Amino acid sequence: MIVVKVGGSLGIDYGAVCSDLASIVKAGRQVILVHGGSAETNRISEQLGKPPRMVTSVSGYESRYTDRETLEIFEMVYCGKMNKSIVEKLQQNGINAVGLSGLDGRIWEGTRKSAITIVEAGKRKVLRDDFTGRVERVNLELIHLLLRGGFTPVLTPPAISYEGEAINVDGDRAAAMLASALAVEKLIILSNVPGLLRDIKDEGSLIPDIPLARIEEFAVFAKGRMKKKVLGAVEAIRDGVKEVVFADARTPFPITEALSGRGTVIH
Amino acid sequence: MIVVKVGGSLGIDYGAVCSDLASIVKAGRQVILVHGGSAETNRISEQLGKPPRMVTSVSGYESRYTDRETLEIFEMVYCGKMNKSIVEKLQQNGINAVGLSGLDGRIWEGTRKSAITIVEAGKRKVLRDDFTGRVERVNLELIHLLLRGGFTPVLTPPAISYEGEAINVDGDRAAAMLASALAVEKLIILSNVPGLLRDIKDEGSLIPDIPLARIEEFAVFAKGRMKKKVLGAVEAIRDGVKEVVFADARTPFPITEALSGRGTVIH
Repeated sequence: MIVVKVGGSLGIDYGAVCSDLASIVKAGRQVILVHGGSAETNRISEQLGKPPRMVTSVSGYESRYTDRETLEIFEMVYCGKMNKSIVEKLQQNGINAVGLSGLDGRIWEGTRKSAITIVEAGKRKVLRDDFTGRVERVNLELIHLLLRGGFTPVLTPPAISYEGEAINVDGDRAAAMLASALAVEKLIILSNVPGLLRDIKDEGSLIPDIPLARIEEFAVFAKGRMKKKVLGAVEAIRDGVKEVVFADARTPFPITEALSGRGTVIH
Repeated sequence: MIVVKVGGSLGIDYGAVCSDLASIVKAGRQVILVHGGSAETNRISEQLGKPPRMVTSVSGYESRYTDRETLEIFEMVYCGKMNKSIVEKLQQNGINAVGLSGLDGRIWEGTRKSAITIVEAGKRKVLRDDFTGRVERVNLELIHLLLRGGFTPVLTPPAISYEGEAINVDGDRAAAMLASALAVEKLIILSNVPGLLRDIKDEGSLIPDIPLARIEEFAVFAKGRMKKKVLGAVEAIRDGVKEVVFADARTPFPITEALSGRGTVIH
Protein backbone atom coordinates (compact mmCIF):
# COMPACT_ATOMS: atom_id res chain seq x y z
CA MET A 1 0.00 0.00 0.00
CA ILE A 2 1.26 3.50 -0.82
CA VAL A 3 0.08 7.03 -0.12
CA VAL A 4 0.57 9.53 -2.94
CA LYS A 5 0.25 13.25 -2.26
CA VAL A 6 -0.07 15.53 -5.27
CA GLY A 7 0.24 19.26 -4.72
CA GLY A 8 -1.93 22.07 -5.92
CA SER A 9 0.71 24.21 -7.58
CA LEU A 10 0.75 25.35 -11.19
CA GLY A 11 2.19 23.05 -13.84
CA ILE A 12 1.01 19.74 -12.42
CA ASP A 13 -0.38 17.30 -14.98
CA TYR A 14 -3.30 15.69 -13.14
CA GLY A 15 -4.18 13.66 -16.22
CA ALA A 16 -0.77 11.96 -16.07
CA VAL A 17 -1.00 11.44 -12.30
CA CYS A 18 -4.44 9.81 -12.67
CA SER A 19 -3.60 7.53 -15.58
CA ASP A 20 -0.35 6.45 -13.92
CA LEU A 21 -2.17 5.83 -10.64
CA ALA A 22 -4.82 3.81 -12.50
CA SER A 23 -2.23 1.46 -14.00
CA ILE A 24 -0.61 0.93 -10.58
CA VAL A 25 -3.98 0.14 -8.96
CA LYS A 26 -4.87 -2.22 -11.83
CA ALA A 27 -1.55 -4.02 -11.25
CA GLY A 28 -2.85 -4.89 -7.77
CA ARG A 29 -1.38 -2.22 -5.49
CA GLN A 30 -3.58 -0.28 -3.07
CA VAL A 31 -3.11 3.48 -3.40
CA ILE A 32 -4.60 6.34 -1.42
CA LEU A 33 -4.36 9.68 -3.22
CA VAL A 34 -4.17 12.94 -1.26
CA HIS A 35 -4.34 16.23 -3.14
CA GLY A 36 -4.07 19.98 -2.69
CA GLY A 37 -5.48 22.94 -4.58
CA SER A 38 -3.61 26.07 -3.55
CA ALA A 39 -3.03 27.71 -6.94
CA GLU A 40 -6.67 27.26 -7.99
CA THR A 41 -7.86 28.52 -4.60
CA ASN A 42 -5.78 31.67 -5.10
CA ARG A 43 -7.29 32.18 -8.54
CA ILE A 44 -10.91 31.68 -7.43
CA SER A 45 -10.34 33.81 -4.29
CA GLU A 46 -9.13 36.66 -6.47
CA GLN A 47 -12.12 36.26 -8.78
CA LEU A 48 -14.50 36.34 -5.82
CA GLY A 49 -12.93 39.57 -4.57
CA LYS A 50 -11.31 37.92 -1.54
CA PRO A 51 -7.60 37.77 -2.45
CA PRO A 52 -5.52 35.19 -0.57
CA ARG A 53 -3.51 36.32 2.42
CA MET A 54 -0.43 34.22 3.16
CA VAL A 55 1.03 34.57 6.64
CA THR A 56 4.36 33.44 8.12
CA SER A 57 4.42 31.96 11.62
CA VAL A 58 7.12 32.92 14.14
CA SER A 59 8.85 29.62 13.40
CA GLY A 60 9.05 30.55 9.70
CA TYR A 61 6.31 28.40 8.16
CA GLU A 62 3.98 29.90 5.58
CA SER A 63 0.22 29.27 5.60
CA ARG A 64 -3.06 30.65 4.30
CA TYR A 65 -4.94 32.96 6.66
CA THR A 66 -8.31 31.23 6.78
CA ASP A 67 -11.32 33.09 8.12
CA ARG A 68 -14.72 31.43 7.63
CA GLU A 69 -15.24 33.00 4.20
CA THR A 70 -11.81 31.81 3.04
CA LEU A 71 -12.54 28.35 4.48
CA GLU A 72 -15.66 28.10 2.34
CA ILE A 73 -13.78 29.14 -0.81
CA PHE A 74 -11.09 26.62 0.15
CA GLU A 75 -13.75 23.89 0.43
CA MET A 76 -15.28 24.89 -2.90
CA VAL A 77 -11.97 24.47 -4.70
CA TYR A 78 -10.37 21.57 -2.80
CA CYS A 79 -13.49 19.43 -2.15
CA GLY A 80 -15.54 20.58 -5.13
CA LYS A 81 -13.56 21.46 -8.22
CA MET A 82 -10.24 19.66 -7.59
CA ASN A 83 -11.52 16.57 -5.79
CA LYS A 84 -14.36 15.84 -8.20
CA SER A 85 -12.23 16.48 -11.28
CA ILE A 86 -9.64 13.97 -9.99
CA VAL A 87 -12.37 11.42 -9.19
CA GLU A 88 -13.78 11.97 -12.70
CA LYS A 89 -10.35 11.38 -14.31
CA LEU A 90 -9.81 8.20 -12.29
CA GLN A 91 -13.28 6.94 -13.22
CA GLN A 92 -12.43 7.61 -16.88
CA ASN A 93 -9.36 5.42 -16.34
CA GLY A 94 -11.50 2.60 -14.94
CA ILE A 95 -10.76 3.18 -11.25
CA ASN A 96 -13.72 3.28 -8.87
CA ALA A 97 -12.58 6.34 -6.92
CA VAL A 98 -14.31 7.93 -3.93
CA GLY A 99 -13.52 11.56 -3.11
CA LEU A 100 -13.47 12.62 0.53
CA SER A 101 -12.34 15.40 2.83
CA GLY A 102 -11.02 15.01 6.35
CA LEU A 103 -14.50 15.94 7.63
CA ASP A 104 -16.03 12.83 6.09
CA GLY A 105 -15.89 9.98 8.58
CA ARG A 106 -13.70 12.36 10.69
CA ILE A 107 -10.69 10.92 8.82
CA TRP A 108 -8.37 13.77 9.82
CA GLU A 109 -9.03 15.07 13.31
CA GLY A 110 -7.11 17.70 15.27
CA THR A 111 -7.01 20.92 17.21
CA ARG A 112 -8.09 24.23 15.82
CA LYS A 113 -5.60 26.96 16.71
CA SER A 114 -7.70 29.64 18.33
CA ALA A 115 -4.96 32.20 17.80
CA ILE A 116 -1.82 32.21 15.65
CA THR A 117 1.19 34.44 16.08
CA ILE A 118 2.60 35.68 12.81
CA VAL A 119 5.39 37.96 11.73
CA GLU A 120 4.39 40.75 9.36
CA ALA A 121 6.81 43.48 8.27
CA GLY A 122 9.13 42.43 11.09
CA LYS A 123 6.43 42.70 13.74
CA ARG A 124 4.64 40.03 15.75
CA LYS A 125 0.89 39.98 15.43
CA VAL A 126 -1.81 37.66 16.80
CA LEU A 127 -4.56 36.52 14.43
CA ARG A 128 -7.86 35.23 15.77
CA ASP A 129 -10.91 33.88 13.86
CA ASP A 130 -8.52 31.69 11.95
CA PHE A 131 -9.79 28.22 10.97
CA THR A 132 -6.46 26.44 10.75
CA GLY A 133 -5.11 23.60 12.77
CA ARG A 134 -3.09 20.43 12.78
CA VAL A 135 -4.02 16.81 12.24
CA GLU A 136 -3.34 14.85 15.43
CA ARG A 137 -5.47 11.77 14.93
CA VAL A 138 -6.29 9.71 11.85
CA ASN A 139 -9.52 7.72 11.98
CA LEU A 140 -8.98 4.85 9.58
CA GLU A 141 -12.38 3.07 9.71
CA LEU A 142 -13.69 4.71 6.54
CA ILE A 143 -10.41 4.29 4.62
CA HIS A 144 -10.21 0.58 5.49
CA LEU A 145 -13.88 0.08 4.62
CA LEU A 146 -13.35 1.63 1.17
CA LEU A 147 -10.13 -0.27 0.45
CA ARG A 148 -11.74 -3.57 1.46
CA GLY A 149 -14.65 -2.72 -0.83
CA GLY A 150 -12.30 -2.21 -3.80
CA PHE A 151 -12.61 1.58 -3.91
CA THR A 152 -9.72 4.03 -4.27
CA PRO A 153 -9.92 6.91 -1.75
CA VAL A 154 -9.07 10.43 -2.95
CA LEU A 155 -8.58 12.62 0.08
CA THR A 156 -8.20 16.37 0.57
CA PRO A 157 -8.20 18.95 3.39
CA PRO A 158 -9.96 20.41 5.35
CA ALA A 159 -9.71 18.32 8.49
CA ILE A 160 -12.16 18.42 11.41
CA SER A 161 -11.58 19.84 14.89
CA TYR A 162 -12.57 17.86 17.98
CA GLU A 163 -15.52 20.27 18.22
CA GLY A 164 -16.59 19.40 14.67
CA GLU A 165 -15.43 22.53 12.84
CA ALA A 166 -13.76 22.36 9.44
CA ILE A 167 -10.10 23.41 9.74
CA ASN A 168 -7.53 24.16 7.08
CA VAL A 169 -4.51 21.90 7.59
CA ASP A 170 -1.32 21.44 5.64
CA GLY A 171 -1.88 18.72 3.03
CA ASP A 172 1.69 17.39 3.09
CA ARG A 173 1.72 16.88 6.83
CA ALA A 174 -1.82 15.45 6.76
CA ALA A 175 -0.68 12.97 4.08
CA ALA A 176 2.33 12.10 6.26
CA MET A 177 0.03 11.45 9.25
CA LEU A 178 -2.15 9.22 7.06
CA ALA A 179 0.89 7.31 5.74
CA SER A 180 2.12 6.73 9.31
CA ALA A 181 -1.30 5.63 10.57
CA LEU A 182 -1.57 3.13 7.70
CA ALA A 183 2.10 2.09 8.18
CA VAL A 184 2.65 2.13 4.41
CA GLU A 185 6.05 1.36 2.90
CA LYS A 186 6.12 4.51 0.80
CA LEU A 187 4.79 8.02 0.87
CA ILE A 188 5.25 9.83 -2.44
CA ILE A 189 4.97 13.61 -2.42
CA LEU A 190 4.57 15.00 -5.92
CA SER A 191 4.90 18.70 -6.75
CA ASN A 192 6.06 20.97 -9.55
CA VAL A 193 9.77 20.49 -8.75
CA PRO A 194 11.98 17.39 -9.24
CA GLY A 195 12.53 17.00 -5.48
CA LEU A 196 14.65 18.78 -2.87
CA LEU A 197 17.09 21.07 -4.65
CA ARG A 198 20.36 22.49 -3.29
CA ASP A 199 19.66 25.57 -5.37
CA ILE A 200 15.97 26.36 -5.83
CA LYS A 201 16.75 28.00 -9.20
CA ASP A 202 18.64 24.98 -10.58
CA GLU A 203 16.61 21.83 -11.26
CA GLY A 204 19.92 20.03 -11.85
CA SER A 205 20.88 20.47 -8.19
CA LEU A 206 18.58 17.66 -7.01
CA ILE A 207 19.55 15.87 -3.81
CA PRO A 208 18.83 12.23 -4.71
CA ASP A 209 19.08 10.52 -1.35
CA ILE A 210 18.92 11.48 2.34
CA PRO A 211 19.22 9.07 5.26
CA LEU A 212 17.00 10.32 8.11
CA ALA A 213 20.03 10.64 10.40
CA ARG A 214 21.45 13.33 8.10
CA ILE A 215 18.20 15.26 7.49
CA GLU A 216 19.39 18.30 9.49
CA GLU A 217 22.24 18.86 7.00
CA PHE A 218 19.83 18.92 4.08
CA ALA A 219 16.77 20.58 5.64
CA VAL A 220 18.50 23.96 5.23
CA PHE A 221 17.95 23.71 1.47
CA ALA A 222 14.16 23.56 1.89
CA LYS A 223 12.53 26.90 1.12
CA GLY A 224 8.87 28.02 1.16
CA ARG A 225 6.39 25.18 0.86
CA MET A 226 9.22 22.60 0.75
CA LYS A 227 9.82 23.23 4.47
CA LYS A 228 6.55 21.59 5.48
CA LYS A 229 7.16 18.71 3.09
CA VAL A 230 10.48 18.00 4.85
CA LEU A 231 8.77 18.32 8.24
CA GLY A 232 6.06 15.88 7.13
CA ALA A 233 8.66 13.45 5.76
CA VAL A 234 10.61 13.44 9.01
CA GLU A 235 7.42 12.86 11.02
CA ALA A 236 6.32 10.05 8.69
CA ILE A 237 9.64 8.19 8.87
CA ARG A 238 9.91 8.60 12.65
CA ASP A 239 6.41 7.08 12.86
CA GLY A 240 7.25 4.00 10.79
CA VAL A 241 6.96 4.83 7.06
CA LYS A 242 10.01 3.22 5.35
CA GLU A 243 10.57 5.75 2.61
CA VAL A 244 9.36 9.19 1.57
CA VAL A 245 9.98 10.32 -2.01
CA PHE A 246 9.73 13.93 -3.21
CA ALA A 247 9.16 13.71 -6.94
CA ASP A 248 8.10 15.59 -10.04
CA ALA A 249 4.39 15.72 -10.97
CA ARG A 250 5.12 17.20 -14.39
CA THR A 251 6.23 13.98 -16.10
CA PRO A 252 4.17 11.38 -18.01
CA PHE A 253 4.51 8.67 -15.29
CA PRO A 254 5.10 10.58 -12.07
CA ILE A 255 4.22 7.82 -9.58
CA THR A 256 5.98 5.02 -11.47
CA GLU A 257 9.12 7.15 -11.69
CA ALA A 258 8.99 7.99 -7.99
CA LEU A 259 8.56 4.28 -7.16
CA SER A 260 11.68 3.52 -9.21
CA GLY A 261 13.67 5.99 -7.13
CA ARG A 262 13.60 9.21 -9.14
CA GLY A 263 13.41 12.35 -7.05
CA THR A 264 14.67 12.83 -3.50
CA VAL A 265 14.41 9.65 -1.43
CA ILE A 266 14.36 10.06 2.35
CA HIS A 267 14.74 6.79 4.25
CA MET B 1 -34.70 3.34 5.93
CA ILE B 2 -35.70 6.70 4.45
CA VAL B 3 -34.29 9.02 1.79
CA VAL B 4 -34.52 12.74 2.53
CA LYS B 5 -33.96 15.27 -0.24
CA VAL B 6 -33.41 18.87 0.80
CA GLY B 7 -33.46 21.51 -1.89
CA GLY B 8 -31.08 24.35 -2.55
CA SER B 9 -33.55 27.23 -2.58
CA LEU B 10 -33.43 30.31 -0.38
CA GLY B 11 -34.95 30.16 3.11
CA ILE B 12 -34.04 26.60 3.97
CA ASP B 13 -32.76 26.09 7.51
CA TYR B 14 -29.99 23.50 7.08
CA GLY B 15 -29.19 23.67 10.79
CA ALA B 16 -32.72 22.46 11.61
CA VAL B 17 -32.60 19.76 8.91
CA CYS B 18 -29.28 18.45 10.26
CA SER B 19 -30.22 18.44 13.95
CA ASP B 20 -33.57 16.80 13.18
CA LEU B 21 -31.87 14.21 10.98
CA ALA B 22 -29.33 13.53 13.74
CA SER B 23 -32.03 12.75 16.29
CA ILE B 24 -33.77 10.40 13.83
CA VAL B 25 -30.51 8.55 13.09
CA LYS B 26 -29.72 8.33 16.82
CA ALA B 27 -33.17 6.79 17.35
CA GLY B 28 -32.00 3.91 15.13
CA ARG B 29 -33.36 4.78 11.68
CA GLN B 30 -31.07 4.71 8.62
CA VAL B 31 -31.27 7.93 6.63
CA ILE B 32 -29.64 8.93 3.37
CA LEU B 33 -29.60 12.68 2.78
CA VAL B 34 -29.60 14.11 -0.74
CA HIS B 35 -29.16 17.85 -1.21
CA GLY B 36 -29.15 20.57 -3.84
CA GLY B 37 -27.51 23.98 -4.06
CA SER B 38 -29.18 25.99 -6.81
CA ALA B 39 -29.57 29.37 -5.09
CA GLU B 40 -25.96 29.39 -3.89
CA THR B 41 -24.75 28.26 -7.34
CA ASN B 42 -26.60 31.20 -8.87
CA ARG B 43 -24.98 33.59 -6.39
CA ILE B 44 -21.43 32.26 -6.91
CA SER B 45 -21.92 32.12 -10.70
CA GLU B 46 -22.88 35.80 -10.70
CA GLN B 47 -19.87 36.65 -8.54
CA LEU B 48 -17.57 34.76 -10.90
CA GLY B 49 -18.93 36.68 -13.87
CA LYS B 50 -20.72 33.67 -15.35
CA PRO B 51 -24.41 34.36 -14.62
CA PRO B 52 -26.72 31.31 -14.63
CA ARG B 53 -28.71 30.56 -17.73
CA MET B 54 -31.93 28.66 -17.12
CA VAL B 55 -33.45 26.96 -20.14
CA THR B 56 -36.87 25.39 -20.72
CA SER B 57 -37.13 22.12 -22.63
CA VAL B 58 -39.79 21.56 -25.29
CA SER B 59 -41.75 19.49 -22.74
CA GLY B 60 -41.80 22.47 -20.36
CA TYR B 61 -39.18 21.50 -17.78
CA GLU B 62 -36.69 24.08 -16.57
CA SER B 63 -33.00 23.30 -16.11
CA ARG B 64 -29.60 24.97 -15.84
CA TYR B 65 -27.60 25.25 -19.07
CA THR B 66 -24.37 23.56 -18.04
CA ASP B 67 -21.27 24.03 -20.15
CA ARG B 68 -17.98 22.75 -18.70
CA GLU B 69 -17.27 26.02 -16.89
CA THR B 70 -20.75 26.01 -15.32
CA LEU B 71 -20.31 22.36 -14.37
CA GLU B 72 -17.15 23.21 -12.44
CA ILE B 73 -18.89 26.06 -10.60
CA PHE B 74 -21.77 23.67 -9.92
CA GLU B 75 -19.30 21.14 -8.43
CA MET B 76 -17.65 23.84 -6.33
CA VAL B 77 -20.93 24.81 -4.73
CA TYR B 78 -22.76 21.47 -4.55
CA CYS B 79 -19.82 19.15 -3.70
CA GLY B 80 -17.62 21.72 -1.96
CA LYS B 81 -19.46 24.41 -0.08
CA MET B 82 -22.92 22.83 0.42
CA ASN B 83 -21.89 19.20 0.88
CA LYS B 84 -19.06 19.87 3.31
CA SER B 85 -21.06 22.37 5.34
CA ILE B 86 -23.86 19.79 5.75
CA VAL B 87 -21.33 17.09 6.71
CA GLU B 88 -19.81 19.53 9.23
CA LYS B 89 -23.24 20.28 10.77
CA LEU B 90 -24.05 16.57 11.05
CA GLN B 91 -20.65 15.87 12.64
CA GLN B 92 -21.37 18.66 15.14
CA ASN B 93 -24.59 16.81 15.94
CA GLY B 94 -22.69 13.57 16.57
CA ILE B 95 -23.47 11.89 13.24
CA ASN B 96 -20.57 10.31 11.36
CA ALA B 97 -21.54 11.66 7.94
CA VAL B 98 -19.78 11.01 4.63
CA GLY B 99 -20.32 13.47 1.79
CA LEU B 100 -20.37 12.12 -1.76
CA SER B 101 -21.36 13.04 -5.29
CA GLY B 102 -22.79 10.71 -7.90
CA LEU B 103 -19.29 10.45 -9.40
CA ASP B 104 -17.93 8.76 -6.27
CA GLY B 105 -18.34 5.03 -6.55
CA ARG B 106 -20.40 5.79 -9.70
CA ILE B 107 -23.47 6.00 -7.44
CA TRP B 108 -25.61 7.83 -9.99
CA GLU B 109 -24.94 6.71 -13.55
CA GLY B 110 -26.71 7.78 -16.72
CA THR B 111 -26.64 9.18 -20.23
CA ARG B 112 -25.29 12.59 -21.08
CA LYS B 113 -27.60 14.39 -23.48
CA SER B 114 -25.36 15.42 -26.33
CA ALA B 115 -27.91 17.97 -27.49
CA ILE B 116 -30.97 19.47 -25.85
CA THR B 117 -33.84 21.20 -27.60
CA ILE B 118 -35.08 24.24 -25.76
CA VAL B 119 -37.69 26.90 -26.34
CA GLU B 120 -36.45 30.48 -26.11
CA ALA B 121 -38.63 33.47 -26.91
CA GLY B 122 -41.09 31.09 -28.58
CA LYS B 123 -38.44 29.55 -30.84
CA ARG B 124 -36.87 26.08 -30.78
CA LYS B 125 -33.13 25.98 -30.41
CA VAL B 126 -30.64 23.12 -30.06
CA LEU B 127 -27.92 23.45 -27.42
CA ARG B 128 -24.74 21.39 -27.63
CA ASP B 129 -21.76 21.24 -25.24
CA ASP B 130 -24.24 20.80 -22.44
CA PHE B 131 -23.21 18.54 -19.56
CA THR B 132 -26.64 17.51 -18.39
CA GLY B 133 -28.22 14.10 -18.34
CA ARG B 134 -30.47 11.74 -16.48
CA VAL B 135 -29.78 9.10 -13.85
CA GLU B 136 -30.67 5.68 -15.25
CA ARG B 137 -28.76 3.36 -12.96
CA VAL B 138 -28.02 3.51 -9.23
CA ASN B 139 -24.94 1.62 -8.05
CA LEU B 140 -25.61 0.82 -4.43
CA GLU B 141 -22.36 -0.92 -3.39
CA LEU B 142 -20.85 2.20 -1.80
CA ILE B 143 -24.11 3.24 -0.09
CA HIS B 144 -24.59 -0.22 1.42
CA LEU B 145 -20.95 -0.34 2.51
CA LEU B 146 -21.29 3.00 4.32
CA LEU B 147 -24.61 2.15 5.97
CA ARG B 148 -23.27 -1.21 7.18
CA GLY B 149 -20.25 0.66 8.57
CA GLY B 150 -22.49 2.99 10.57
CA PHE B 151 -21.90 6.06 8.39
CA THR B 152 -24.61 8.43 7.15
CA PRO B 153 -24.27 9.20 3.41
CA VAL B 154 -24.85 12.78 2.23
CA LEU B 155 -25.26 12.74 -1.52
CA THR B 156 -25.38 15.46 -4.16
CA PRO B 157 -25.25 15.82 -7.95
CA PRO B 158 -23.45 15.68 -10.36
CA ALA B 159 -23.92 12.14 -11.63
CA ILE B 160 -21.54 10.31 -13.97
CA SER B 161 -22.11 9.39 -17.61
CA TYR B 162 -21.32 5.89 -18.87
CA GLU B 163 -18.21 7.46 -20.44
CA GLY B 164 -17.12 8.82 -17.05
CA GLU B 165 -18.02 12.48 -17.50
CA ALA B 166 -19.61 14.51 -14.72
CA ILE B 167 -23.20 15.42 -15.67
CA ASN B 168 -25.65 17.80 -14.06
CA VAL B 169 -28.83 15.91 -13.18
CA ASP B 170 -31.99 16.94 -11.42
CA GLY B 171 -31.57 16.30 -7.69
CA ASP B 172 -35.22 15.45 -7.02
CA ARG B 173 -35.38 12.82 -9.72
CA ALA B 174 -31.95 11.46 -8.72
CA ALA B 175 -33.20 11.18 -5.11
CA ALA B 176 -36.30 9.39 -6.40
CA MET B 177 -34.13 6.91 -8.34
CA LEU B 178 -32.07 6.29 -5.20
CA ALA B 179 -35.20 5.77 -3.07
CA SER B 180 -36.55 3.26 -5.60
CA ALA B 181 -33.25 1.39 -5.87
CA LEU B 182 -33.10 1.11 -2.08
CA ALA B 183 -36.83 0.24 -1.92
CA VAL B 184 -37.29 2.58 1.04
CA GLU B 185 -40.70 3.11 2.63
CA LYS B 186 -40.51 6.87 2.42
CA LEU B 187 -38.95 9.55 0.29
CA ILE B 188 -39.20 13.01 1.85
CA ILE B 189 -38.66 15.98 -0.44
CA LEU B 190 -38.07 19.18 1.54
CA SER B 191 -38.11 22.63 -0.02
CA ASN B 192 -39.06 26.20 0.81
CA VAL B 193 -42.80 25.60 0.39
CA PRO B 194 -45.21 23.58 2.58
CA GLY B 195 -45.88 21.05 -0.19
CA LEU B 196 -47.92 21.05 -3.41
CA LEU B 197 -50.17 24.11 -3.42
CA ARG B 198 -53.35 24.67 -5.45
CA ASP B 199 -52.39 28.31 -5.61
CA ILE B 200 -48.64 28.96 -5.61
CA LYS B 201 -49.24 32.34 -3.94
CA ASP B 202 -51.28 30.91 -1.07
CA GLU B 203 -49.47 28.65 1.41
CA GLY B 204 -52.89 27.81 2.90
CA SER B 205 -53.90 26.03 -0.32
CA LEU B 206 -51.83 22.93 0.49
CA ILE B 207 -52.99 19.64 -1.04
CA PRO B 208 -52.49 17.23 1.89
CA ASP B 209 -52.96 13.88 0.24
CA ILE B 210 -52.79 12.42 -3.30
CA PRO B 211 -53.35 8.75 -4.17
CA LEU B 212 -51.10 7.88 -7.15
CA ALA B 213 -54.15 6.96 -9.24
CA ARG B 214 -55.33 10.59 -9.05
CA ILE B 215 -51.95 12.26 -9.65
CA GLU B 216 -52.98 13.56 -13.09
CA GLU B 217 -55.70 15.72 -11.50
CA PHE B 218 -53.24 17.35 -9.16
CA ALA B 219 -50.10 17.52 -11.32
CA VAL B 220 -51.60 20.57 -13.07
CA PHE B 221 -50.98 22.61 -9.92
CA ALA B 222 -47.22 21.97 -10.06
CA LYS B 223 -45.33 24.97 -11.42
CA GLY B 224 -41.61 25.60 -12.03
CA ARG B 225 -39.32 23.34 -10.02
CA MET B 226 -42.31 21.54 -8.45
CA LYS B 227 -42.97 19.86 -11.83
CA LYS B 228 -39.83 17.71 -11.57
CA LYS B 229 -40.59 16.89 -7.94
CA VAL B 230 -43.99 15.50 -9.00
CA LEU B 231 -42.34 13.61 -11.86
CA GLY B 232 -39.78 12.14 -9.44
CA ALA B 233 -42.51 11.21 -6.95
CA VAL B 234 -44.54 9.38 -9.60
CA GLU B 235 -41.43 7.50 -10.77
CA ALA B 236 -40.49 6.57 -7.19
CA ILE B 237 -43.94 5.22 -6.31
CA ARG B 238 -44.26 3.30 -9.60
CA ASP B 239 -40.88 1.72 -8.75
CA GLY B 240 -41.88 0.57 -5.28
CA VAL B 241 -41.47 3.44 -2.79
CA LYS B 242 -44.58 3.40 -0.52
CA GLU B 243 -44.90 7.10 0.13
CA VAL B 244 -43.43 10.38 -1.07
CA VAL B 245 -43.89 13.47 1.10
CA PHE B 246 -43.36 17.04 -0.11
CA ALA B 247 -42.71 19.08 3.02
CA ASP B 248 -41.45 22.35 4.38
CA ALA B 249 -37.72 22.76 5.15
CA ARG B 250 -38.26 26.04 6.98
CA THR B 251 -39.57 24.58 10.24
CA PRO B 252 -37.65 23.49 13.39
CA PHE B 253 -38.23 19.74 12.82
CA PRO B 254 -38.77 19.37 9.08
CA ILE B 255 -38.13 15.62 8.79
CA THR B 256 -40.05 14.65 11.94
CA GLU B 257 -43.02 16.70 10.75
CA ALA B 258 -42.92 15.13 7.30
CA LEU B 259 -42.77 11.66 8.88
CA SER B 260 -45.88 12.50 10.89
CA GLY B 261 -47.74 13.34 7.69
CA ARG B 262 -47.40 17.12 7.38
CA GLY B 263 -47.05 18.35 3.82
CA THR B 264 -48.33 16.69 0.67
CA VAL B 265 -48.34 12.90 0.93
CA ILE B 266 -48.36 10.95 -2.34
CA HIS B 267 -49.02 7.25 -1.90
